[in-house]
Amino acid sequence: MAYPMNGGNGQYSYSNNSSFQRGAIHATKELINEAIAENLDIKNFSSSNTFRVTDLGCSVGPNTFVAVQNIIDAVNLKYQSQGHRTPEFQVFFNDHALNDFNTLFTSLPPDRLYYAAGVPGSFHSRIFPSASLHFVIISYALHCLSRVPKEVLDKTSPAYNKGRIHYSNSSDKVVEAYAAQYAKDMECFLNARAQEVVCGGLVAIIVPGCPNGIPHSQIFVNMWYELFGSCLLDMVQKGIISEEKVDSFNLPTYFASPQEVEAAVERNGCFHIERMEMVPQERPSGNSSTSRGRVMSSQIRAGVSGIIKEHFGEEIIDELFDALHKKFDESSLFESWNGTNMFVLLKRIATI
Amino acid sequence: MAYPMNGGNGQYSYSNNSSFQRGAIHATKELINEAIAENLDIKNFSSSNTFRVTDLGCSVGPNTFVAVQNIIDAVNLKYQSQGHRTPEFQVFFNDHALNDFNTLFTSLPPDRLYYAAGVPGSFHSRIFPSASLHFVIISYALHCLSRVPKEVLDKTSPAYNKGRIHYSNSSDKVVEAYAAQYAKDMECFLNARAQEVVCGGLVAIIVPGCPNGIPHSQIFVNMWYELFGSCLLDMVQKGIISEEKVDSFNLPTYFASPQEVEAAVERNGCFHIERMEMVPQERPSGNSSTSRGRVMSSQIRAGVSGIIKEHFGEEIIDELFDALHKKFDESSLFESWNGTNMFVLLKRIATI
Repeated sequence: MAYPMNGGNGQYSYSNNSSFQRGAIHATKELINEAIAENLDIKNFSSSNTFRVTDLGCSVGPNTFVAVQNIIDAVNLKYQSQGHRTPEFQVFFNDHALNDFNTLFTSLPPDRLYYAAGVPGSFHSRIFPSASLHFVIISYALHCLSRVPKEVLDKTSPAYNKGRIHYSNSSDKVVEAYAAQYAKDMECFLNARAQEVVCGGLVAIIVPGCPNGIPHSQIFVNMWYELFGSCLLDMVQKGIISEEKVDSFNLPTYFASPQEVEAAVERNGCFHIERMEMVPQERPSGNSSTSRGRVMSSQIRAGVSGIIKEHFGEEIIDELFDALHKKFDESSLFESWNGTNMFVLLKRIATI
Repeated sequence: MAYPMNGGNGQYSYSNNSSFQRGAIHATKELINEAIAENLDIKNFSSSNTFRVTDLGCSVGPNTFVAVQNIIDAVNLKYQSQGHRTPEFQVFFNDHALNDFNTLFTSLPPDRLYYAAGVPGSFHSRIFPSASLHFVIISYALHCLSRVPKEVLDKTSPAYNKGRIHYSNSSDKVVEAYAAQYAKDMECFLNARAQEVVCGGLVAIIVPGCPNGIPHSQIFVNMWYELFGSCLLDMVQKGIISEEKVDSFNLPTYFASPQEVEAAVERNGCFHIERMEMVPQERPSGNSSTSRGRVMSSQIRAGVSGIIKEHFGEEIIDELFDALHKKFDESSLFESWNGTNMFVLLKRIATI
C-alpha cells in the first residue's frame, strides 16, 4: 500500500511541513557536490548529451526542487571542469501514483533549466528503462517499507506486536521481522536500480539512520514514533479508539544501520559504496509564533495522515496531532539532541 | 493561457466525455500501423534499447492509453518482423501543467508493458531533451492555438471579431488573423519537435481538418462552434451575460487545411511528409438513454468548460450547455454528415 505525503498547499500539506527534511538536504549538499566532483564517471556518458536525474519518493516540493538544483549545479561544474560541453538535463520526479503530482507540476520552478517529468510508481520496483539514469537521489524515503511485515500483525506469531505501532521498544522477534522486511525491500530497490542506472552513475541515499551498535530505541525518529504511539494508547484509555485498532496498526518504516545497508549492497553486487557516513541533523526548532512541538507535530502529520486516516478514520486526526504537539512541547527529547542521518553514495559498477 | 480538459472521473470529465475523439483514434489505427511498418527507420535507433513515445496534449485518458498501446503493438511487430529484439518502451504523457495528471496516473493500465511518465508543459515549446523521441502522436490537440490572435480582440483593428467567438463566419481579416496565429504556432511546434525527435523518428498528427478549397464555415467542428456561439448570443438577449463579454471572447482554436500544414512543414525543413490524407470521422451518435445532442454537448463541455468559466464565470455553465444540447437535438447538422479528420505523418529527416 502507498500512503503519499499530504498533497496541496494547505496548512497540513507536505509542501508547507517539510522543513525538517529540507534540513537534511542542506546538510548533505556538500557531500553531493563532492560525490559528483569525485565519483561521477562522465566519460562513460558521452554517447548521449542528456543527463538524466531522478528524485525517488520526491513528494510535492519544494524540497525536491532544491535537491535537484543542487545536483544539476554540481554536474554542470563537473562537465565544465573537465572541458566538456554541459549536457541537457531531464529530471524525473518519482513518487507513488497517489502522490499529488498536480501540485508538484504547477509548482515547478519557472526558471528551471531542465526538462521535467513525473514518474508514478514504487521505487521498490522497475520504473525506468534499462541504463537510462545517471544520478539517483532518494532523500527521506528509503526507510519506507513496501508493507508492514505480516508477522507483527499475526496474533499467532511470536513477532506479534501487541500494544505497539513500531518496533523500536518491541521484542527481538518484532525487530527481526522489520529488519527482514527492510532487507527484502532493499534487495528489490537495488535490483531495480542496478538495471536502471548506467555504469558509472551514482545513487545518493539520505535517510535517518541507526548508527552501528546503537539500540533502535535511542534514535530520534524512533523516539518520536514512540511518543506518537503513546498518543494513540492515550486515546484507547479515553475510549476514543479501540485497543484492537491499535494492535492491528503498525507503521511501515524501518531505520537501518550502516551495516545493514552494506550487507544489502554486497548481496546485490552491482554497486560500490563510494561513501557512507552519519551526518548530524540540525535540532528542529520552533519560531516566534509556533512552538517546536507544533512544528514537529505538523511535519509528522503531513507524513502519516494518510495511513492514520485509512486505519483509524479521519475524525481522530485533529485530536491526535494536538496531543502529539503537547507531548512534544512537554518532552525532553530535544534537549540532548543527537539526530543523525545516514548519507550513502553508491556507484554502479560494471558487472560480468 | 492553458485550459485543460475537465479532470477527474465525474459526469462532465473528459475521461467520460471523449468518445468522439476516440472515434478518430480508431479510424486512424490502421494508418498508424502502416506508418510504423513502412516508415519507421529502426536501424537508426540501434544504439539504445529504449523506444520513447509521447502523446502530446494527452488529457486524462482513456483515449491516450488506447492510442499509445496501438503504437507499441505496431512497433513491436516492426522489430519482430525485422528480426530485432523488441525494445523497452518509455511513454511520456504530455499536457499543460494544469491537466489532471493525478487522475491520469491513477488510471494508468495496470498491465501496461511500458515505463510511464508525465510531462507538464506546452507542446508549442521544447519539453524534451534533444533527439530523445522516436514516435510522437498528437491527436485532437494541434488545433489548439497558444493564444487568441490579439487583433480579433482589438476594437481598433480591422480584424476585430465583434459578436462572434470564432472565425468561421467572420470577415477575411479575422480568418487571416487566426491563420497567422496558427502558422506561428506550427512554426514553434515543428521547431521544437525537430530538435526532440531522432532522425528517422515519426510524428503522427490527427486533427479535425478543413479540406483544401472548402470554406471554414462548412466543416463540422466550426458548425458546432457556430451553434455554441449562438447559445452565448441567446444569453446576451436574455440579459444573462453582457454583449461586451461575448465580444471580448474568442476560442483559441484553428482547423487548418492540408495546404497550410504542407506550407508549415516546408518552411521548417526538418521533416518529410510521408502521408497526408483526410479520414472520415464517424457520425456521432446518442444511445438509448441519451440523445446525440446531449452526448455532443457533454463532450464539448468537457473540452471548453475551463475557458468558459474563466471568462464568463461558473454560474452560466449548466444553462449554456443545456441550451447547446437542445440546439444540437434540433439541428440538422448531423443529417448530411461529412466530418473528416486530417491524418499527417511526418518523418524527421537528416539535415545539414
